[in-house]
Amino acid sequence: MRVLLRVEYNGGAYCGWQRQKNGLSVQEVLANAVFEVTGERSVMHGSGRTDAGVHAIAQAVHFDTHTKIPLDKLPIALNAHLPKSVRVKSAREVQGNFNARFDALSKTYLYRLYASPVSSPLKEGFAAFVPKKPNVQEMRRAAEYIVGEHDFKCFQAAGGHVKTTVRTIESLIIEEKGDEIIFEVTGNGFLYNMVRIMVGTLYYVGIGKLRPEEVKEIILSKDRTRAGKTMPPEGLYLKQVRYAED
Amino acid sequence: MRVLLRVEYNGGAYCGWQRQKNGLSVQEVLANAVFEVTGERSVMHGSGRTDAGVHAIAQAVHFDTHTKIPLDKLPIALNAHLPKSVRVKSAREVQGNFNARFDALSKTYLYRLYASPVSSPLKEGFAAFVPKKPNVQEMRRAAEYIVGEHDFKCFQAAGGHVKTTVRTIESLIIEEKGDEIIFEVTGNGFLYNMVRIMVGTLYYVGIGKLRPEEVKEIILSKDRTRAGKTMPPEGLYLKQVRYAED
Repeated sequence: MRVLLRVEYNGGAYCGWQRQKNGLSVQEVLANAVFEVTGERSVMHGSGRTDAGVHAIAQAVHFDTHTKIPLDKLPIALNAHLPKSVRVKSAREVQGNFNARFDALSKTYLYRLYASPVSSPLKEGFAAFVPKKPNVQEMRRAAEYIVGEHDFKCFQAAGGHVKTTVRTIESLIIEEKGDEIIFEVTGNGFLYNMVRIMVGTLYYVGIGKLRPEEVKEIILSKDRTRAGKTMPPEGLYLKQVRYAED
Repeated sequence: MRVLLRVEYNGGAYCGWQRQKNGLSVQEVLANAVFEVTGERSVMHGSGRTDAGVHAIAQAVHFDTHTKIPLDKLPIALNAHLPKSVRVKSAREVQGNFNARFDALSKTYLYRLYASPVSSPLKEGFAAFVPKKPNVQEMRRAAEYIVGEHDFKCFQAAGGHVKTTVRTIESLIIEEKGDEIIFEVTGNGFLYNMVRIMVGTLYYVGIGKLRPEEVKEIILSKDRTRAGKTMPPEGLYLKQVRYAED
């Protein structure tokens, strides 16, 4: 039986989603809990990697099991063997050829930044601190050039290896909430570090280092060096992964 | 010169506000930063203690110094010597007989709890998890018996030693925000663990273990054993301390 889990985690406690030699990964912690509960050594297939410090509100993970535990009881059983920084929120059966990565129709990420004279101990690790308040209207104008199907090579970090850098951004919403600015971006796929570089580029627009129209030019140039800085991981949250079966 | 600081901190990283033999306190960390900046060993006088795990959005702290550093630059100087879990947000001069504890006219605390089938890794340490969603209307009815001047001995934890247990609660507002319930309580003073026991008692009302009217009886009884459980520290935030000079 193939099972699809939705998993919330605090990325600050891990070296990222993917198993690594030095550092504890969410994948490893989850595989260990599955082993404790089922006695089986199963590979945990995530919808994609998240870097160290990046959070997940609902990472999607599939794995195979012969467990007799009813699926509605599986989250409780797994959570009993997981640290509090990782929680399985739901489990359901999917078809035997389902793949959490390749079957994802779209993903939604949040990015939280806050502008304040002094950094906030209570937001530390959960939102990116910027000293200068960006102009949200200008960032929204720039965001219009990002929405749609484009070659986003300019927003791909070194180390990304994919056949095509063309992706479709379905929506990019920017909201203010107190001293926070929250970016919610949905797309059919994301390149390595794409959201963090995209937000860094929009932030440059917000503080006047780039004009909104320049974002269009940067995309067309396919030149990473013209885009903004990669924003820090702690502001990023994988919010949702959608599948045809949902 | 006597200086009043407003300090934000993540209480999860400390044994509490007050200096202790085993464990790092916010008071100690702040005194060390003051020493680094001024060369002076000053005592940090807080508006009151906060327990391990309890956060402060704005703890008020006074101390004496002969520093020549302009007061508007003092937060930057201190923050350079503080861990990211403690931040001085402002500094101003006060009269030589000002006392952060005894001159406080009122304090406001927040308490965040959330009801969810599964605990949230992203709220871990920042809000108290309860498995059962309480009825907010019932809790609001009960809160009406708390507002006002009363002998709150029933809400005082063992270990509290004060001349009188009479306090005035100026307001107690309960709001729902997603799966969170946020209590905001302002009063002229609080007994040891008073907010956490008060919220625990209101929670019992919310889940039907107590009727709203029983809160009135519990207050009159002055009997701690009749009130609710002490809620965990991580949901509690010292939000504001008010003085006549503000």
